[in-house]
Amino acid sequence: MEDLPRIAPLLLRQTNPEYRGDRTRAVQVRGACFGGERPTVIAGPCAVESYEQTLTVARAVQKAGADALRGGAYKPRTSPHDFQGIGLEGLHILRAASDETGLPVVTEVMDTRLVEQVAEFADMLQVGSRNMQNYPLLAEVGRAHKPVLLKRGMAAGLCEWLGSAEYIAQQGNLNIVLCERGIKAFPSGEYSRYVLDLNVIPALRSLSFLPVIVDPSHSTGVASMVEPASRAALEFGSHGLIIEVAEEAERGCDAAQAIDAQTLLRIVKFARAHWTPVEVHEAAARA
Amino acid sequence: MEDLPRIAPLLLRQTNPEYRGDRTRAVQVRGACFGGERPTVIAGPCAVESYEQTLTVARAVQKAGADALRGGAYKPRTSPHDFQGIGLEGLHILRAASDETGLPVVTEVMDTRLVEQVAEFADMLQVGSRNMQNYPLLAEVGRAHKPVLLKRGMAAGLCEWLGSAEYIAQQGNLNIVLCERGIKAFPSGEYSRYVLDLNVIPALRSLSFLPVIVDPSHSTGVASMVEPASRAALEFGSHGLIIEVAEEAERGCDAAQAIDAQTLLRIVKFARAHWTPVEVHEAAARA
Amino acid sequence: MEDLPRIAPLLLRQTNPEYRGDRTRAVQVRGACFGGERPTVIAGPCAVESYEQTLTVARAVQKAGADALRGGAYKPRTSPHDFQGIGLEGLHILRAASDETGLPVVTEVMDTRLVEQVAEFADMLQVGSRNMQNYPLLAEVGRAHKPVLLKRGMAAGLCEWLGSAEYIAQQGNLNIVLCERGIKAFPSGEYSRYVLDLNVIPALRSLSFLPVIVDPSHSTGVASMVEPASRAALEFGSHGLIIEVAEEAERGCDAAQAIDAQTLLRIVKFARAHWTPVEVHEAAARA
Amino acid sequence: MEDLPRIAPLLLRQTNPEYRGDRTRAVQVRGACFGGERPTVIAGPCAVESYEQTLTVARAVQKAGADALRGGAYKPRTSPHDFQGIGLEGLHILRAASDETGLPVVTEVMDTRLVEQVAEFADMLQVGSRNMQNYPLLAEVGRAHKPVLLKRGMAAGLCEWLGSAEYIAQQGNLNIVLCERGIKAFPSGEYSRYVLDLNVIPALRSLSFLPVIVDPSHSTGVASMVEPASRAALEFGSHGLIIEVAEEAERGCDAAQAIDAQTLLRIVKFARAHWTPVEVHEAAARA
Repeated sequence: MEDLPRIAPLLLRQTNPEYRGDRTRAVQVRGACFGGERPTVIAGPCAVESYEQTLTVARAVQKAGADALRGGAYKPRTSPHDFQGIGLEGLHILRAASDETGLPVVTEVMDTRLVEQVAEFADMLQVGSRNMQNYPLLAEVGRAHKPVLLKRGMAAGLCEWLGSAEYIAQQGNLNIVLCERGIKAFPSGEYSRYVLDLNVIPALRSLSFLPVIVDPSHSTGVASMVEPASRAALEFGSHGLIIEVAEEAERGCDAAQAIDAQTLLRIVKFARAHWTPVEVHEAAARA
Repeated sequence: MEDLPRIAPLLLRQTNPEYRGDRTRAVQVRGACFGGERPTVIAGPCAVESYEQTLTVARAVQKAGADALRGGAYKPRTSPHDFQGIGLEGLHILRAASDETGLPVVTEVMDTRLVEQVAEFADMLQVGSRNMQNYPLLAEVGRAHKPVLLKRGMAAGLCEWLGSAEYIAQQGNLNIVLCERGIKAFPSGEYSRYVLDLNVIPALRSLSFLPVIVDPSHSTGVASMVEPASRAALEFGSHGLIIEVAEEAERGCDAAQAIDAQTLLRIVKFARAHWTPVEVHEAAARA
Repeated sequence: MEDLPRIAPLLLRQTNPEYRGDRTRAVQVRGACFGGERPTVIAGPCAVESYEQTLTVARAVQKAGADALRGGAYKPRTSPHDFQGIGLEGLHILRAASDETGLPVVTEVMDTRLVEQVAEFADMLQVGSRNMQNYPLLAEVGRAHKPVLLKRGMAAGLCEWLGSAEYIAQQGNLNIVLCERGIKAFPSGEYSRYVLDLNVIPALRSLSFLPVIVDPSHSTGVASMVEPASRAALEFGSHGLIIEVAEEAERGCDAAQAIDAQTLLRIVKFARAHWTPVEVHEAAARA
Repeated sequence: MEDLPRIAPLLLRQTNPEYRGDRTRAVQVRGACFGGERPTVIAGPCAVESYEQTLTVARAVQKAGADALRGGAYKPRTSPHDFQGIGLEGLHILRAASDETGLPVVTEVMDTRLVEQVAEFADMLQVGSRNMQNYPLLAEVGRAHKPVLLKRGMAAGLCEWLGSAEYIAQQGNLNIVLCERGIKAFPSGEYSRYVLDLNVIPALRSLSFLPVIVDPSHSTGVASMVEPASRAALEFGSHGLIIEVAEEAERGCDAAQAIDAQTLLRIVKFARAHWTPVEVHEAAARA
C-alpha cells in the first residue's frame, strides 16, 4: 500500500487535492451516473443471443427502473469450444435495444483490435476480469474516449487493480468505474462460485476517488444469492451493481446465476430507497 | 457438499423434517434470542481488563440496545509473550457486569479443562476460530448444556464447519450459533485483516437450521469498516452480529477494529429497523 | 515478519547467538535424529487399526530403512460420525510395534487431558494441523518432556506457526520439529488435496534453528504424487518426511494417499543418497 | 475435472490415443527440446536493457550449459509508470545475442498486434501469467507457427490453464510448453512472492501430453530459494526450468530474485545428472 502513490498517482485522493475528503468522481454514461447521489444498476443478459431475447430483457430492465443495459457480444470462455458470443451482430442488437429503451449499453471488449468497433456501439466499455492486466487493451480502451468499467482480476490485490486503472487514466481518461466480481480463494466452488470480497469497497473509496460497483451475479454464481448480495454490496458502500437477468422462458437452462425481472425490480427499489452514504474519511487507514 | 448428510446429519434441513423449508432453530441465551424475529447484537470489549473498563463498556452496550455482552477472559494470542487475558478474574468481572446490566455474557473457552469453570460464569460459550477443529473441546462444550457460539476456522469450508458443529450436537446440544469471522485468502492483510465471506450465510441457511451471525470486527480489522460490514451482513441474511466496542478513552491505543458507543447505537438501530428476512428455499442449491 | 523477534524469540537465529549461521538444532527421538546429517523418514499407517496391521506395516517401514513409525490412535476427523481411532488400545499396539522393530513412535495427541497418557507410549508427540493454534495443548505438550512434531495449520503463515512453536518452547522444551503438510488455497481439491508449500522450508530454515520436515501424503492426497513430492521436499531443504504407508491388501480401499512398501524403500534410498544441504545464510531475507 | 474432455480435447491423453500412457510431446525450439530425454533450462535477464548487458548474460547462460535464452523486451508491469521494456530495440538485441551464442530466444508478447513482430525475432513466444486468459492473444500466438510458452495465471486452476492452451492448439499449433510460476494464496508476500505449486506438475503430466516447466524465480521471488526450488521442481517431474540471471555488477540493485552464473551452472548440472522420470500413469486420478 505504501507503493500506491507511485503505482496509481492519477487516481488517489492523496495525490489529487481536488478529491481530498470523500468526494467521488461522477462518471456519466449518457443518462446514468456512477458515483452520483444514488446507486446505479446495470442489468441485462449474460450473452446477447438474439434481437428478441435482448429486447425482451432490455424492456424488463427498463421497466424495473435500472439505469443501463449489459450484455455480452464477445464472451471470454474457459474453452475455445464454448460459445464465444455472436460478435458484431450482438453489438448491433445491443445498439438497437438501447435505442428502443433509452438505456445506455455496457459491453465487454477483449481484443485491442476491436476496441474501436465496440466503442462505436457501446456507451461504456467493459474490461473483464481475465483481462484486468492486459495492459495494451487497457491503454487502447483509455484512448477510446468512452467510460470504462474495469472488473477486478480474480487474483488482484487493491494495488494491482488500481495500477491497471492507471493504465486507462494515463491515456487521459479518468471516467473509470471499478467493479468487484469475486475472487478466487479456498471456498470458491464449494457453495458459491467465487468469494465476494466487500471489504475492498470502503478500502478503495478511502484511497481513490473512482466509483466502485459490485457484480453480485458472478461473485456468487447462485441466483438466490444475487438479491441479498446486492443489498449487502450497497450497504457496504458500493456505488452500484451489475446484474445478470434472464428471460422467464430460459431460466434454469440458462446460467445458474441469472435472476428474473421481479427480483431485479426489488433490487432497484432497494437501491433507490435504502442507500446510506458511507463515511470513508478514515477507512482502511491500515489493515 | 454431497458428503454433508453423512458429516452433519443432526444439523441439516434435509435430514431433519421439522426444519424443512426456511425455519431457523431459535437459540435462547437468557433474554437474547438468535434465529428469532429480529437480528441479535452481541457487543463488548476485546479483552476484559478491569471491572471499571468492562462495566463502562457494558453500560454503553446496554444503552445502545444490544442484546448480549462479549468480552475475553482467556485470549488466544499468536505468541505466548502477548497478553493472554486475566482469566478467572475476568470471568468474575463479566458476571458482575452482566448482573449490573442484565445482559447475558458470551465468552471464549479454549481449554477443555476450563469448560466447567467458564460455563459457571458465561451464558453462552464461544469456541474461537483457532479451535474450530479442536474436537475434544467441541465435545466438552457440547456437554456443558449452555448455548455455544462456534466461530468459523480461517480455512474452514462449509462442510468442515458444520462437521465441527456436529461434534457439539452429538452431545445432545443443538443450541449452536455459527459465526462467520473472515477467512484467509490472498488479500488478507493488504487492506483488511481477513476476507469477510458473506456468501456462506445464505448457503448455510439453506442447508442447516442453525442461526448464523457475523463478526464484522475481526473479519475487517478496520474500525471504519465495522458499520458498513454490519449492515451488509444483515442484508445478506445474517441473524446477528458480534462486535468489539472500546471505551472512548482507550480508542486508538486499543485494537484498530474497536468501534465506539455511538457507532454501535447506529448499528443496533439498523438491525432493528432494516432487517429483511431472506428466502432460503432454493439458495445454494449448487455452486 | 518484523514482529517475529517479539513473537518467537526463543526460536529465532537472530535472538539466539548460538544458532547464528546455518546450524540446525538436532532433535533426538531415540535412534532417530531430526536436523542431523541426513534426512529422517517417519512412516506408518494412517490409523492404527489392529496389532497385525500395525506390525505388518511397521516391519515394512523398518525393512525400508525408515527412522520412525507413525500411526494414529486418536484421529481428528471432520465429522464425529467418522472413525475416531481406537484410542488407548492403539497406543498399546504402537508401543508393541515399536518394541518389536526398535523404531521410535510418533503419534498425535489432541486432548490436553490425554497428553500424559499418550506421552507414556509415544517417543514423539504430534500436534496436528487442526490444533496448531490450540494453545493449552501446545503448553501441555511442552511440559511433557518429549520431542514434539508440530504440523502447520492449513491457514497458518510463518509467523503464526513459529508463534505456536513458541508456546511449546516457553515450557522449556526446544525439541520441536516443524512439519509442512499443505495449505488451503484455491486449487485445493481440484487435482490435489492441499497445496504443498515448499517455499516455507528455506524461509523457516533461515529464520529459525528448528528442523522442518514435510508430509507428502496429506499435502498431495494422491498416492502417485507422494514419491516425487518427497524428493522435491528433500531437494528444497526439508530435514525429513512423514509418510503414510498401507499394507498391500488394504490399498485402494484405504486412503487414496497411502503408498506401498516398495515406494517407501525408494524414497528412503533417495533420502540417504541425494540430500544436498541448503545454504540458508541469506534465504528469505525478505519476500 | 470431469469437464476437461470438453474443455481441452486437443491436449488430453484420454482423447488422443497416440499419447496414452506417459509419452510427452516433444516441443523443439531450434536446438532445445522440451519434453525430451532430459530437462531443458531457459535462463537470462529479467528485462533486456542493453546489448552489453544481454550479451554478457547470454554468454554466461551459454557457458553454464543452459538450452535457451530468455529476456523481456516488452515487460508487463503493475503500473504504467514503471519501466515497460525497450520494445523493438530489445528484440534486435535478443536476436543478436542469440546469433552470437547459438541459444534460441524465448520472449514475451503481450499485444495481439505485435505477435508477428515478436515472432520475427523470437524462437519461442511467451504468454505471461497476466495474459493467460487473453484469448485473442492466445489465438494470435497459435497462428504464428512458433512454439509457445504458456505461463499459468496467478489464479488459474488446471482446467482453466489447459482451456487456455486449447485456444493455441485450436489454431493448429500443438507446440505448447506449460509453465508453473507460482499462485496467489494467503502466504504470498510473507516469506516468498508467490506460492510455488508443484502438485500441479504430475497432475498435468497425467492428464495432458504437453511438457510442463517451472519458473523458480517468480514463484519464490527470493534469489536464495531459486536453486532449491529448481531441484525440487525437477524431482517433482518438471520438464525444465526458466530462470532469471543477472550480471554480477547489477545484483542487489536488480530484482531480488535473479541468481548469478555460478548458481545457474550448478542448476544446469543438477538438471543433467539427477533427473528422474516420473511415472505418471495413475497420478492425479483424482484429488
